[in-house]
Amino acid sequence: MAIKVIDVNVGVFDENNEIADEVRAYNKDKGTLMINIMASPGAGKTTTLLRTIDALKEEFSIGVMEADIEASVDAEKMAEAGVRSIQVHTGGECAMDASMVHQALQEFDTDGIDLLFMENVGNLVCTAEQDTGADYNVEILSVPEGDDKPLKYPLMFSVCQCVLINKIDTRNWFAFDDAAVTERIHRLNPDADVIFLSGKTGEGFDQWIEWLRAKLR
Amino acid sequence: MAIKVIDVNVGVFDENNEIADEVRAYNKDKGTLMINIMASPGAGKTTTLLRTIDALKEEFSIGVMEADIEASVDAEKMAEAGVRSIQVHTGGECAMDASMVHQALQEFDTDGIDLLFMENVGNLVCTAEQDTGADYNVEILSVPEGDDKPLKYPLMFSVCQCVLINKIDTRNWFAFDDAAVTERIHRLNPDADVIFLSGKTGEGFDQWIEWLRAKLR
Repeated sequence: MAIKVIDVNVGVFDENNEIADEVRAYNKDKGTLMINIMASPGAGKTTTLLRTIDALKEEFSIGVMEADIEASVDAEKMAEAGVRSIQVHTGGECAMDASMVHQALQEFDTDGIDLLFMENVGNLVCTAEQDTGADYNVEILSVPEGDDKPLKYPLMFSVCQCVLINKIDTRNWFAFDDAAVTERIHRLNPDADVIFLSGKTGEGFDQWIEWLRAKLR
Repeated sequence: MAIKVIDVNVGVFDENNEIADEVRAYNKDKGTLMINIMASPGAGKTTTLLRTIDALKEEFSIGVMEADIEASVDAEKMAEAGVRSIQVHTGGECAMDASMVHQALQEFDTDGIDLLFMENVGNLVCTAEQDTGADYNVEILSVPEGDDKPLKYPLMFSVCQCVLINKIDTRNWFAFDDAAVTERIHRLNPDADVIFLSGKTGEGFDQWIEWLRAKLR
């Protein structure tokens, strides 16, 4: 499957919220639910997405917008998996904003797509500052990163509707306190759903897939 | 030990290189070598630093500048370990720039400090874009993040004189190709030293401590 790659320009920050609303209206009109996936580099965004797509692809038509500074390795993986995807190069920018998403949507024909994942740039700071126009924000925190991350990157954990605690198959090898991380997330964001899973083994995926299905109803 | 916490203002980007040179001149005048430590969130910066300080504290006077968006947990750990430290709050900024370092140095008396570590904000994008005035840039990449990170964050691996591959004690549980990561780093940055170690177990630290000692001579 050929990969479409586009270079986008950064938008004017002040106009961002307005463009984000336009993106949501555009997606709503197309019947597309857009999920913005954010995480540190190496938290397992791509692996988790691939397994998620595999679980839902028979029920829904799925697309992926891959955002990276300049690489295209993730879109290549999506294409290999047979997923309709577009690679966005942010040209050095550390996060997608609504204007970038807007530009990408013009290039990426989303007709007939029920569920559009955006895999944002690996970053816990800049990505949290931008309304991308997504319907939901999901943050992936992996066990090896440690349970103190909500203390250090509070904005990220405040803007998400769902936090996936990933790589729980490695929990025996890292000091990671499930109860402490959940409490730290809920102190910032009482309504956030916290789901423990492993993109590698599939453990915990039922709950995550059910979370997505509920949003798609 | 009491922690000094300061809030800094972001500098004007155009002037940054000039201020970075001022920072280097200031540190040189004081006889202080400054090392900028960069990494993803959760790559093990603090653990690696604590072990490094432990290995060198009898030989050299060491200080730590902790940069975080708003938390102070790392400076508290440094204080518990008896290290002279200052906590810098970047007020939402995703990286330290030279102007922030300049402000912090005014507050943090570095008289008599031979070796000053700056633990930058956990981020592989913004941090790489700023000359902080450090004498050397060191990037920590941890095994759980994956060996593809140089492909996705090329600027970071281009601006470092040394890359520490951390958490090698977890190498059996993650697919991580030592030769591939080294080749990817050297393709971007042929002169970078690549050192494999574990902040947790201490494996590989001899080489890293020797690297630092050579710079301090």
